[in-house]
Amino acid sequence: MTSEQTPRFSVLARDGNARVGELSMNRHSLQTPTFMPVGTRGSVRTITSQDLEELGADIILGNTYHLMLRPGEKLIKEFGGLHEFANWNRLILTDSGGYQVFSLEPDVDDDGVTFKSTYDGSYHRLTPEKAVEIQNTLGSDIQMALDVCPPLPADKEVIELAVERTQLWAERARRHFLNLKTELTKDQSQFGIVQGGLDLSLRRKSAEQIVEIGFDGYAIGGLSVGETREEMLDPMSESTKHLPLERPRYFMGLGDPAGLVEAISCGIDMFDCVWPTRLARHGTALTTQGRINLSAAKYAKSDEPIDPEFTENSTSRWSRGYIRHLLSVGEPVAGRILTLHNLAWTFAFMQRAREAIMSDNFKEFRRKTLEIWG
Amino acid sequence: MTSEQTPRFSVLARDGNARVGELSMNRHSLQTPTFMPVGTRGSVRTITSQDLEELGADIILGNTYHLMLRPGEKLIKEFGGLHEFANWNRLILTDSGGYQVFSLEPDVDDDGVTFKSTYDGSYHRLTPEKAVEIQNTLGSDIQMALDVCPPLPADKEVIELAVERTQLWAERARRHFLNLKTELTKDQSQFGIVQGGLDLSLRRKSAEQIVEIGFDGYAIGGLSVGETREEMLDPMSESTKHLPLERPRYFMGLGDPAGLVEAISCGIDMFDCVWPTRLARHGTALTTQGRINLSAAKYAKSDEPIDPEFTENSTSRWSRGYIRHLLSVGEPVAGRILTLHNLAWTFAFMQRAREAIMSDNFKEFRRKTLEIWG
Repeated sequence: MTSEQTPRFSVLARDGNARVGELSMNRHSLQTPTFMPVGTRGSVRTITSQDLEELGADIILGNTYHLMLRPGEKLIKEFGGLHEFANWNRLILTDSGGYQVFSLEPDVDDDGVTFKSTYDGSYHRLTPEKAVEIQNTLGSDIQMALDVCPPLPADKEVIELAVERTQLWAERARRHFLNLKTELTKDQSQFGIVQGGLDLSLRRKSAEQIVEIGFDGYAIGGLSVGETREEMLDPMSESTKHLPLERPRYFMGLGDPAGLVEAISCGIDMFDCVWPTRLARHGTALTTQGRINLSAAKYAKSDEPIDPEFTENSTSRWSRGYIRHLLSVGEPVAGRILTLHNLAWTFAFMQRAREAIMSDNFKEFRRKTLEIWG
Repeated sequence: MTSEQTPRFSVLARDGNARVGELSMNRHSLQTPTFMPVGTRGSVRTITSQDLEELGADIILGNTYHLMLRPGEKLIKEFGGLHEFANWNRLILTDSGGYQVFSLEPDVDDDGVTFKSTYDGSYHRLTPEKAVEIQNTLGSDIQMALDVCPPLPADKEVIELAVERTQLWAERARRHFLNLKTELTKDQSQFGIVQGGLDLSLRRKSAEQIVEIGFDGYAIGGLSVGETREEMLDPMSESTKHLPLERPRYFMGLGDPAGLVEAISCGIDMFDCVWPTRLARHGTALTTQGRINLSAAKYAKSDEPIDPEFTENSTSRWSRGYIRHLLSVGEPVAGRILTLHNLAWTFAFMQRAREAIMSDNFKEFRRKTLEIWG
């Protein structure tokens, strides 16, 4: 199952619906399932692109909403695009801006959405076409079509309207993306987004509509936005079922181990989330035995590394007690150390998931993961 | 000129009074003149001990005042001392706590000083003996005798009393240090501190008193505490003149290039200051052409590295424009990048100073430095 479409994607191994894939484009190849750290404002908070290289990150996410407002996509273009601006030579996926915008209670109409900048209160407008143009200007490798993403819980009519507009906007976004394609941008790709809230028939309808339009990859949006994990599972599974096997699938906004194994077991390939990096900045570390908050007094005398069962990363040289001290006196480097740890831990978790799939052990990997994180 | 005293110290080259020395003890050897980054609370703000190793730092400073209060020297001892606690295997110099305490308007008497914790308002007491014990417990390589350090300007009587108490306290500190010396601590060393404000005869008197007691090295304190650089020069020179040539000399609290060349030209060997790291956290970079504040709008479109004439450090991969963006949206990693840059720059500056001395070019190096930084 290989396709000549960009990104090139081939499935290397399967275990149930779970799969290991190879995704490659422009600058870089990577194995899926993969986790993409969130570099909101052209930087993953507290760390640099050099740190991300050393961590082995393959692809990071940039937020169109933030970047179009500060410093503005035109300025970034003057530097040669977001890769050059942030000095990051592997892959970048940009979101469409929609997710952030819809959290600001914007004015939505059939044509697009008008919202207020959180920076200075000025008004801005995004349309499907505008979102394509901004992402082209940023020069991301993978860009997202503008969708309508309502927070949950939501009334059925809200979800129905979201599915309808998402489909119309996806058509416009795809047409505009293809129209603007040039020799220069021919290796950039565009993913469509499935909506539908928790309603299975709307999930199916939305998936079929987006696949019908035809994108380079498919994302599941509108989940992990306020519902429980239990509520998320069926709509996630239903959305995935109707996506083509030969293209990459991306679940937007998921990063906890329990959620990840569930999504991987449906056959999802790509993930992003602020969860591991935000937890880190609040003193929480991911460990093989679950999450721990190192601000707690009980760690003051601990000379153990952050996760005694995961010492491959350079951050294992500092003890829990030392990090607890840094947190308690407000030293900013504590957030950096824990960000490096949580990302390294998450990348190792994804690596273990891939190995489990390749050795037909994913069921057991999922069971063990849910035992601790479920 | 080599001495068997700890630290071992030998002068390798001289140019006028300026000199290049080799200092070695316990764990590490280094060349002087050397700059010691300030790791106030067991960490140089925004960076880790791994970063310091990669920068080539040889020795860092720890603040006894902060460490005795948080997390407390006894806790640090449970980890095996400050080196193990912070996972830093090169040298550590600890101050006596006096400098910070005297900035808090404490109650001073002939026996010691009582002060209020900035953390929780609790009262604490430092005496010359207590300062030795705390620094022994922290396990620093070089410790400082407790002195009386009045901020400038100050009345003559204030300075006279400070010189007198500094001498009495130095005697007690030295006696206590030598009494407590064991096989285990035999490679730890203790420096005495010269006071005397801006008064040349008091400077001379204090220097002679402290040398008379006999320490492993000598520090010039009570300068760079509010006076102009012009005012500082003669008292600095007068203090240094009466120190033995064969022992290391340390100027406390100096880190700007103009101050450094002046002090080096007097024959001073060691320096510490929060200046380069504090500037970094406020967006200011040291460059070959002087300091620049990268928050300024004029850098928004600059694709030049931080200092186009100093690109040996890894931080030169990011442009002034990118860092300006990070500063303007409050990304904490901007402080990290500039801290790494300013320290690398300062270390390179010290390296150039050593090379100038070794090639008998220090006069020219000083002239050029003062042209830009004077």
